[in-house]
Amino acid sequence: MLGLVLALPMLVALIYRESCAGGFALSMLVATIVGGAVWLSFRRYREEINLKEGLFIVAGAWFFACLFGALPFYFCGVFDNFTDCFFETCSGFTTTGATVLTDIEAQQKGILFWRSFTHWLGGMGIIVLSIAILPLIGVGGMQLFRAEVPGPTADKIKPRIAETARILWLVYVGLSVFETLLLMLGGMDFFDALCHTFGTMATGGFSTKNASIGHYDSSYIHYVIAIFMFLAGVNFALHFAAVRGNFKAYLKDNEFRIYTSIIVVMTIMGSLVLIFQTDKSVSVSIRDTFFQIVAFITTTGYSTSDYELWPFGGQILLLILMFVGGSTGSTGGGVKVMRHVLMFKQAYNELYMLVHPHAVRVIKYGKTTVSPAVMRSIWSFLFLYLFLFALASIIMGMLGHDPLTATTTVASAIGNIGPGFGHIGPTENYAHFGVAAKWLLSMCMLIGRLEVYTVVILFAPAFWRK
Amino acid sequence: MLGLVLALPMLVALIYRESCAGGFALSMLVATIVGGAVWLSFRRYREEINLKEGLFIVAGAWFFACLFGALPFYFCGVFDNFTDCFFETCSGFTTTGATVLTDIEAQQKGILFWRSFTHWLGGMGIIVLSIAILPLIGVGGMQLFRAEVPGPTADKIKPRIAETARILWLVYVGLSVFETLLLMLGGMDFFDALCHTFGTMATGGFSTKNASIGHYDSSYIHYVIAIFMFLAGVNFALHFAAVRGNFKAYLKDNEFRIYTSIIVVMTIMGSLVLIFQTDKSVSVSIRDTFFQIVAFITTTGYSTSDYELWPFGGQILLLILMFVGGSTGSTGGGVKVMRHVLMFKQAYNELYMLVHPHAVRVIKYGKTTVSPAVMRSIWSFLFLYLFLFALASIIMGMLGHDPLTATTTVASAIGNIGPGFGHIGPTENYAHFGVAAKWLLSMCMLIGRLEVYTVVILFAPAFWRK
Repeated sequence: MLGLVLALPMLVALIYRESCAGGFALSMLVATIVGGAVWLSFRRYREEINLKEGLFIVAGAWFFACLFGALPFYFCGVFDNFTDCFFETCSGFTTTGATVLTDIEAQQKGILFWRSFTHWLGGMGIIVLSIAILPLIGVGGMQLFRAEVPGPTADKIKPRIAETARILWLVYVGLSVFETLLLMLGGMDFFDALCHTFGTMATGGFSTKNASIGHYDSSYIHYVIAIFMFLAGVNFALHFAAVRGNFKAYLKDNEFRIYTSIIVVMTIMGSLVLIFQTDKSVSVSIRDTFFQIVAFITTTGYSTSDYELWPFGGQILLLILMFVGGSTGSTGGGVKVMRHVLMFKQAYNELYMLVHPHAVRVIKYGKTTVSPAVMRSIWSFLFLYLFLFALASIIMGMLGHDPLTATTTVASAIGNIGPGFGHIGPTENYAHFGVAAKWLLSMCMLIGRLEVYTVVILFAPAFWRK
Repeated sequence: MLGLVLALPMLVALIYRESCAGGFALSMLVATIVGGAVWLSFRRYREEINLKEGLFIVAGAWFFACLFGALPFYFCGVFDNFTDCFFETCSGFTTTGATVLTDIEAQQKGILFWRSFTHWLGGMGIIVLSIAILPLIGVGGMQLFRAEVPGPTADKIKPRIAETARILWLVYVGLSVFETLLLMLGGMDFFDALCHTFGTMATGGFSTKNASIGHYDSSYIHYVIAIFMFLAGVNFALHFAAVRGNFKAYLKDNEFRIYTSIIVVMTIMGSLVLIFQTDKSVSVSIRDTFFQIVAFITTTGYSTSDYELWPFGGQILLLILMFVGGSTGSTGGGVKVMRHVLMFKQAYNELYMLVHPHAVRVIKYGKTTVSPAVMRSIWSFLFLYLFLFALASIIMGMLGHDPLTATTTVASAIGNIGPGFGHIGPTENYAHFGVAAKWLLSMCMLIGRLEVYTVVILFAPAFWRK
């Protein structure tokens, strides 16, 4: 499938009469031959896939997509080593948006299209994975989500995975078309509008400009992208319900309310800091803060201003948001708002029960009672997430990076954000990291994107034991 | 009681014929009059204390100890504002060791004795609290600890709180006497040996020297203090078992094994970094790394070298250790090793059950099966800990501190460590912080010291509702 999809960037390259068309053709060939050989070998295998195989296939598919998706970068000579090619593709498919390109605008359009397109494909994959597949497996409390499909009856989202996927993709495609048009209305050309839409809807963060969205000095464009980042960070099942006319689904959803509240409160706090502590005007302060807060909570990572030059009060908000993340069932990464909401509820229950030891309190999410098994799964997710964060940070430190850079690169990678603090600020890129760091961060991106469990389990002895 | 205890530093001041003796006398008077009035008012109250009252008394006692313990600093004119007096005392009683004194060696000996002595008293209080009181209440999974009292039969630690306290204090006093003697053997004078023992055994970190333990260029002294920090970070019930001849208790204890392993592994990693990336000799590298690793994991916060000048690989180890903490039932603060061990076990179980959905796995700690209620309590502890860490970090950022300083001051305060990174490195102090930051950090120290729940619960509406 990847072999076929590569036809699109090749087409772009041909339209612009670019030399990289050949590189795409070669990549298509390799991907199609290898993929075809695998398909031919296994197509007679008709047994039902079991859970272990399912987990292996999910993690494997993502890894191999990054491996073969990296070929065009290699064949077109964008980078002189395969590590950079893999890093850029992995950052694309996982919708992270961390780049090793030092001069983005010098690249051929076919290449720029491909890297943005990997975002969009990855975003698509994640919505299906998080709404249709992971809940069935029960990874990290995702099963709860299934029960929370909005609308009066659960059958509104069709139970069959393929049908669910089709409907969600329609919403995804629809929003993408809409954003592209709005950006073009703001004066962006079709190519840039499309690429930035890919980056936005997937909460990815790749731009076609060196200065990211800061390249455009139009408030209209900043706000359009900020609002679509916001929408991309919302559970897509809610958008689906809205399309069916059920707009109340948004307001009824606990996660959406908290997600929105965090953005509103932090935007107010950050704006006040910028208004009083910089010489930016009130409207620019609000615009820049809103954009950057949304870019961080949704894990997109676009930037319109060099937030490392902001007063510290603004910076700390972004730093903390790196550990919040988007909504479940959105293209956003990170820990996710729903998990935070449920953990907060349980922590409060524990306080309550300390004072009223005989009280029995359950955790409710909407009208659903959250089972202890789901909560266990969520807690363990948090622990694994933080444990891997700590472990990878130590390795980054050992590789010679200062504490702020080491911790925020890892937080950025595992949260699929892109930029961070220290040496990965909004004006910097990942080109200066060593080979080991790039592979480590690539693995963190995959681990974060696949909700930790799906990848980590492959390293658990229990997975391989009979 | 505090009024009576203040007689000791007054005695020190008298011996050295210092002017601060008057300040201590005045403080004694105030504390005794107020305390006496409260005691007289309530001594006829014979009803049994209920849980709510118990929690309130624990948090209140700690707060008021800091309030009245701050008086000598005020009356002796050590600081010109009460905020600093409170901060220094709170840092003392909570065994944090963060100081606002800019020139420690210029202080009168009575004052130096008092601040070190607050550590020692606080450490005593914490052992009793964490071994004898909190397990009864069931705060943050501490009830598990009770079942884990080592030795062949549980009656080895007497069930009655007073008796338990007496025995644990004997161990505490015994180790303190031993350390003081060893330090004097190394050439330290009695006064400094005593004060450093207070700082060590309580895992506090106040020193009588501006350069902390780095003042002494004797490896013997470094190692003695490092080893006693290590011992102070061990569950005191294990020491008690050892005193009774049951040395195997150490090795049988899961938490002790992991605590020791972390120190050994990190010391090796850090030493290698120092050996290869600095011009320190092998023996100095090992000595400095071991000392600093132990100082951080036990949350003591003493320093022998300016670790902010270390290669980043060494720094990141210390940074991550800020979130590990000592053992349960020790004087160490932080999240604590036992909680990490249990969370890790459950996370592994979740992975296992994902592959084997019908498997039933329980979490074992030694021979005890950990109940789901205890686990819930531990998870909620972690969430509250991190939530408050994030919240306080945001406030610190808003108060104008850079991200690294903001996050590590809070981590240092809530983990009762003392130093950190950024503007609170080993060569710096807390004098430059504003009033708001000092009160915020003081509250964080109290929250961390009292295992979060005990303080946070006072702010939960459920606590005050009928």
